[in-house]
Amino acid sequence: MPKRNIVVEREMQFPPFKRDVELVERKGIGHPDSLIDGVMEEISRELSREYLNEFGRILHHNVDKGQICGGATEVEFGGGLFTKPIYVLLSGRATAEAEGRKIPVQHIAIDTAKRYLKDTVRHLDVDSDVEIESRISAGSAELASLFSRSGKMPVANDTSFGTGFAPLDDLERLVLAVENYLNSADYKISHPSVGEDIKVMGLRQGNGIKLTVSIAFVSKYLEDIDAYAEHKEKVTESIIGIAEKITEKEVEVSVNTADDIEKKSVYITLSGTSAEMGDDGSVGRGNRVNGLITPFRGMSLEAAAGKNPVNHVGKIYSVLATVMSREIAEEHEEIEDITITLLSEIGKPIDQPKVASVSVLTKEKGQFDKLKDKVAHGVDRHLEEITEMTNQIVFGKVRVF
Amino acid sequence: MPKRNIVVEREMQFPPFKRDVELVERKGIGHPDSLIDGVMEEISRELSREYLNEFGRILHHNVDKGQICGGATEVEFGGGLFTKPIYVLLSGRATAEAEGRKIPVQHIAIDTAKRYLKDTVRHLDVDSDVEIESRISAGSAELASLFSRSGKMPVANDTSFGTGFAPLDDLERLVLAVENYLNSADYKISHPSVGEDIKVMGLRQGNGIKLTVSIAFVSKYLEDIDAYAEHKEKVTESIIGIAEKITEKEVEVSVNTADDIEKKSVYITLSGTSAEMGDDGSVGRGNRVNGLITPFRGMSLEAAAGKNPVNHVGKIYSVLATVMSREIAEEHEEIEDITITLLSEIGKPIDQPKVASVSVLTKEKGQFDKLKDKVAHGVDRHLEEITEMTNQIVFGKVRVF
Amino acid sequence: MPKRNIVVEREMQFPPFKRDVELVERKGIGHPDSLIDGVMEEISRELSREYLNEFGRILHHNVDKGQICGGATEVEFGGGLFTKPIYVLLSGRATAEAEGRKIPVQHIAIDTAKRYLKDTVRHLDVDSDVEIESRISAGSAELASLFSRSGKMPVANDTSFGTGFAPLDDLERLVLAVENYLNSADYKISHPSVGEDIKVMGLRQGNGIKLTVSIAFVSKYLEDIDAYAEHKEKVTESIIGIAEKITEKEVEVSVNTADDIEKKSVYITLSGTSAEMGDDGSVGRGNRVNGLITPFRGMSLEAAAGKNPVNHVGKIYSVLATVMSREIAEEHEEIEDITITLLSEIGKPIDQPKVASVSVLTKEKGQFDKLKDKVAHGVDRHLEEITEMTNQIVFGKVRVF
Amino acid sequence: MPKRNIVVEREMQFPPFKRDVELVERKGIGHPDSLIDGVMEEISRELSREYLNEFGRILHHNVDKGQICGGATEVEFGGGLFTKPIYVLLSGRATAEAEGRKIPVQHIAIDTAKRYLKDTVRHLDVDSDVEIESRISAGSAELASLFSRSGKMPVANDTSFGTGFAPLDDLERLVLAVENYLNSADYKISHPSVGEDIKVMGLRQGNGIKLTVSIAFVSKYLEDIDAYAEHKEKVTESIIGIAEKITEKEVEVSVNTADDIEKKSVYITLSGTSAEMGDDGSVGRGNRVNGLITPFRGMSLEAAAGKNPVNHVGKIYSVLATVMSREIAEEHEEIEDITITLLSEIGKPIDQPKVASVSVLTKEKGQFDKLKDKVAHGVDRHLEEITEMTNQIVFGKVRVF
Repeated sequence: MPKRNIVVEREMQFPPFKRDVELVERKGIGHPDSLIDGVMEEISRELSREYLNEFGRILHHNVDKGQICGGATEVEFGGGLFTKPIYVLLSGRATAEAEGRKIPVQHIAIDTAKRYLKDTVRHLDVDSDVEIESRISAGSAELASLFSRSGKMPVANDTSFGTGFAPLDDLERLVLAVENYLNSADYKISHPSVGEDIKVMGLRQGNGIKLTVSIAFVSKYLEDIDAYAEHKEKVTESIIGIAEKITEKEVEVSVNTADDIEKKSVYITLSGTSAEMGDDGSVGRGNRVNGLITPFRGMSLEAAAGKNPVNHVGKIYSVLATVMSREIAEEHEEIEDITITLLSEIGKPIDQPKVASVSVLTKEKGQFDKLKDKVAHGVDRHLEEITEMTNQIVFGKVRVF
Repeated sequence: MPKRNIVVEREMQFPPFKRDVELVERKGIGHPDSLIDGVMEEISRELSREYLNEFGRILHHNVDKGQICGGATEVEFGGGLFTKPIYVLLSGRATAEAEGRKIPVQHIAIDTAKRYLKDTVRHLDVDSDVEIESRISAGSAELASLFSRSGKMPVANDTSFGTGFAPLDDLERLVLAVENYLNSADYKISHPSVGEDIKVMGLRQGNGIKLTVSIAFVSKYLEDIDAYAEHKEKVTESIIGIAEKITEKEVEVSVNTADDIEKKSVYITLSGTSAEMGDDGSVGRGNRVNGLITPFRGMSLEAAAGKNPVNHVGKIYSVLATVMSREIAEEHEEIEDITITLLSEIGKPIDQPKVASVSVLTKEKGQFDKLKDKVAHGVDRHLEEITEMTNQIVFGKVRVF
Repeated sequence: MPKRNIVVEREMQFPPFKRDVELVERKGIGHPDSLIDGVMEEISRELSREYLNEFGRILHHNVDKGQICGGATEVEFGGGLFTKPIYVLLSGRATAEAEGRKIPVQHIAIDTAKRYLKDTVRHLDVDSDVEIESRISAGSAELASLFSRSGKMPVANDTSFGTGFAPLDDLERLVLAVENYLNSADYKISHPSVGEDIKVMGLRQGNGIKLTVSIAFVSKYLEDIDAYAEHKEKVTESIIGIAEKITEKEVEVSVNTADDIEKKSVYITLSGTSAEMGDDGSVGRGNRVNGLITPFRGMSLEAAAGKNPVNHVGKIYSVLATVMSREIAEEHEEIEDITITLLSEIGKPIDQPKVASVSVLTKEKGQFDKLKDKVAHGVDRHLEEITEMTNQIVFGKVRVF
Repeated sequence: MPKRNIVVEREMQFPPFKRDVELVERKGIGHPDSLIDGVMEEISRELSREYLNEFGRILHHNVDKGQICGGATEVEFGGGLFTKPIYVLLSGRATAEAEGRKIPVQHIAIDTAKRYLKDTVRHLDVDSDVEIESRISAGSAELASLFSRSGKMPVANDTSFGTGFAPLDDLERLVLAVENYLNSADYKISHPSVGEDIKVMGLRQGNGIKLTVSIAFVSKYLEDIDAYAEHKEKVTESIIGIAEKITEKEVEVSVNTADDIEKKSVYITLSGTSAEMGDDGSVGRGNRVNGLITPFRGMSLEAAAGKNPVNHVGKIYSVLATVMSREIAEEHEEIEDITITLLSEIGKPIDQPKVASVSVLTKEKGQFDKLKDKVAHGVDRHLEEITEMTNQIVFGKVRVF
């Protein structure tokens, strides 16, 4: 038996997919909340890589607060113009000096933010239409030794928790897949008018699923209202096509439901993101680390994006709980649903959570007792290797929003 | 039977208080996340009152994005000084012109933010140590007629949902009570060294509760490390006193666990909030509308603070679901736990949610069938009077964080 | 004979008052350029006093860059409102740490800026309608020993110069007096509708003077266009009254010449300064240290406001040259006009200018030769006591704009 | 005789070149004051071209206020890094809407600012190390008809003046030439270590000239202190070479006089401008429209950079007075020195100044009377064609700083 405080319980709850009503949402990569999540996470990764290069270890930082203040545009079929730039505020803190050497924190932050926005929103002219301001507090490295000690397990930065579950159910996979597909490089090539700001909301009632998809179309590819209607029709068909591959339930798809084609009041943008027209975004207000918002499941409110990947348990426990739920569920086909919550205690080694609370629902009755110890062992093993998560985050092997 | 789509189910889940492990958190009113929640909500309320005065109806606004970037201080026993001001960014959008009249949106925003911060953090010199910038987009009132029409039910601004539950369980009541007590006017008079930035985290394992309380003490009332230790001891006793009145479970209390008294490394501040020393805050990253963070319950990720109280379902449904859960639970003593989720459909009247999903756990078996219709009627009645929520929010009768 | 390099020449030029055309301007204390001059100078003074209190000497600082970005208002007779706040950017650099002690530079800067604006513009609600941001770079005190050494003469920070002349001629005295009178406390009490933003431009052609005065009237004291016309008429009379006391030349006065009374297009403001309605201000773009802009005289382009009063020759030489011109002219009644230019050499003691170039015009021929040595002695003596200027500046005994 | 109010007087003054002491300064194109002058002027030009393209006429704008807040760098031989970005604030006002069409003012402003900075400072990584914020007020075009009326002469925006003189004397030509040469493309290719931030101060006493030149060297081309000393030596020789071609007076050259080679305390930068290390810049604090600061000549304090080139007399009169002085001096070889001052009257056509005051010094006695009328005619002709100046400014044919 593992020495860690791992509690495996029988799941006594109805998981969402067994309820009558289920709701799942994903804010696509071009949604203002996701954009700023992505910006801050990429800054954390870039800083981490820079620290590793310079010092052989990651130094302290948490850049998990950021804000996008929407700009203003005048959009018309075929084009448009920016009348007020998008404003991006980078916030948080990072080590700028250690061992007598300086790290160009603000340079890295601004450079990375620009690069990320350019890469993520194809039609946004970041140089001209985005103002980026860094208010990241640059400190020196007093706590470095405590923070990341070679050969020693990091200690939890706070008393906090992370939670994860697996596997994704039908509706969850569907919502995720739709956004991923519409934002894939291939799809963009064949459908350039589809912007990156895509929000997918899935509602299941009984066996019927209703997908409400909101897409910021790009005006320059749409010469008039007819073109818009045509493109929207095609995208709707694409979504139905994807849905049929993922679920056998009946799926109804609505795209941009607030459109009024008669009045030519439709959802078109210059850049493909609503951030251009007044929509704001904040870190941590969008997807959880599995890429979804699942109100009928337990969720952490902690933003993972931008937090340091070494000892910030709000991040590393969320990622680890998600990853190990998935792997444990894959190893044991008896598992219908598994939810893992890791609770830290400030100042204690992160591989020793105060409690790892696991609840398991098996596909058939009577399987739980046999599984219990195996699951506990699986959790124990993942905790043993928790520091591996840090690398996976830094080198982009796991998603955090 | 009500015509609304109200589904009342038997709760098939173990509510948190029946589980082995339960976790509840509250960020006190002086925590950076709560501070910015409070600032933006107060701005929304002040704007609403101004719109009512000027036009007889509330005009469109959503000021639900804001950011506090922490300042820097040098703190020592007996005093200290600010070396970098706290920066507060106000964001979102609000109607600044309607019917040929102007509303001084930026004036109201900045004025309200200052007043709120002064009222909330006693020892913060807002005039000198806080920089406030408003990037609220001030628009004109094209959508006013749609938004708030006299005699007509507002229509949902989006497809979204709100959730609420009742009653609070032991741990939840305890966490809430501790913060409320430590931040009460009476307590502050007798214990002036206790700052407003208080975070209470409650962990229950079986019958034992551990409260981890983090308090920003105010340096000017503490002449040396001994005074600090003494004050901390007194506060710990106060918390134990409160706990005994609320729960019969065994409660262990730790205050400022990261302190190192030997090294004089303790949690003291100039102003009573960690925002002074680099801690940032964002709207919607703290408490839900019932004042708590309850990771083992379903939660909405929507920030309520700052959203318009007329048709933003992310706010009004959250508040209504919370209020009606409480009132229905109080009316029917058979109810052990009730959770209500309201799902909107964009463009539909807000008193007609797409679905009102209710799950009820009764204290004894066999009570559900008799309750079902009564609960449905209760939900129907509250939906009938949903617009009443707007006034309660505007005039400060309900909390939103 | 003095050992300093003092060159006294016979003035070979026609001073402006002997020319056919002469132009003089003063931007009153509420003009945006003067406002920001005043803000930054007051910050320098406050910092200097703080340094003196803490360290017994003034530490290095130069806060001579600042910017006011105008706000926006809707003004009507009887009142109005702000629709966009005035934004004030404080810039420059100041010592924030020395001898292990910290100085709250940003706190002092913001606090002083607010206080100054409140004191200077009676009707500006600084708390609500002004955003102040400090980007003053706070450094540590490496150069302190060089900068201000007890018992040693400071050394020039740069190769630069300052210039001054005396006495003021008729037109110069008139322009200065008009603004001073209209902005005096007494006048404000009896004429509350007269705002602080007053620009006086005086043009002399031969014996005729035309004063063009621009005044931001305060709307709340003016119920309608008739009241405006009446108040303007009274102010015009006040100016004529003052003019008659100062000069015997014929003076024509125009107030707010761009007014169109018919169309009710007149110069009224909410706060008494045009900064409320889009007019920007920058340090150093307004009056020289004698309070005037005199294009037909030699002028320094250096802003004095905000510069350190210890060794910044652009400031201290300008002030000293102005003060000593005045005193020397008063001592010797033969002097009709005296202009003194002090040129520094970086790194050399400030009481040893590279050259002090003096040109003197006497009232009668033949007086120059007798005066020459006396003037040189006077200049020498003032240079001897140059450090006295520092105190006079810090404690507000001399004007710098 | 011309109908305009043109007064030609005999120059009664000693021009600076006839005095014992003369002082001239030029802030090079990479100096922070010049940089922000250049940024704002380029924005005005780009806006003007955009207005011409869209509307066939230039719309109202004045973007003559801007501020550079210096960044922070760590510089060492061979390289270095930015620790705080340079912050650039764009201010002023511009027409963003006319005839139902929008102009992307903020887009143009930010885009132009970036482009200009990239073109002007070779080694500044504008994308990463510069934050640009536009607070330009974007207004609509109420005054457009008054401002620029096809076929009608624009009317003066204010009562103001501009002044110019010709020809440049020895010292003035020398100071200008040195900076132009060191910042020429050819020189940069052969001397890449010479940054763009070059300040040249020339002091003449009798027949001796002392040039004090301050140059921000670029660290990456300098591997150690010896390389620095060597490069500085070469540049000094280059300057002596240029000087010999321009003047026969004896010229002494000092470069970076504050250097302490022993202590390796020298003037090296990462980017070639001192803006990287805390030096601020403001519009209008540097060179006058002839490219020089000439304290012994009459000067306007008005910044020309960024002002509209249609009716802002502070700009167009300064440029015209400078251009016409030069051309008139070239036409009449008898002229030793000519100074022209144009004074406007608000609301009057700009080709009808209130007075054009001209003073002429001839090389020989007795030439003035014959010249007087010719000069008056020349001034009259230039005023006749004043609107031509606008095009020359917009299309970059004349310098303004």
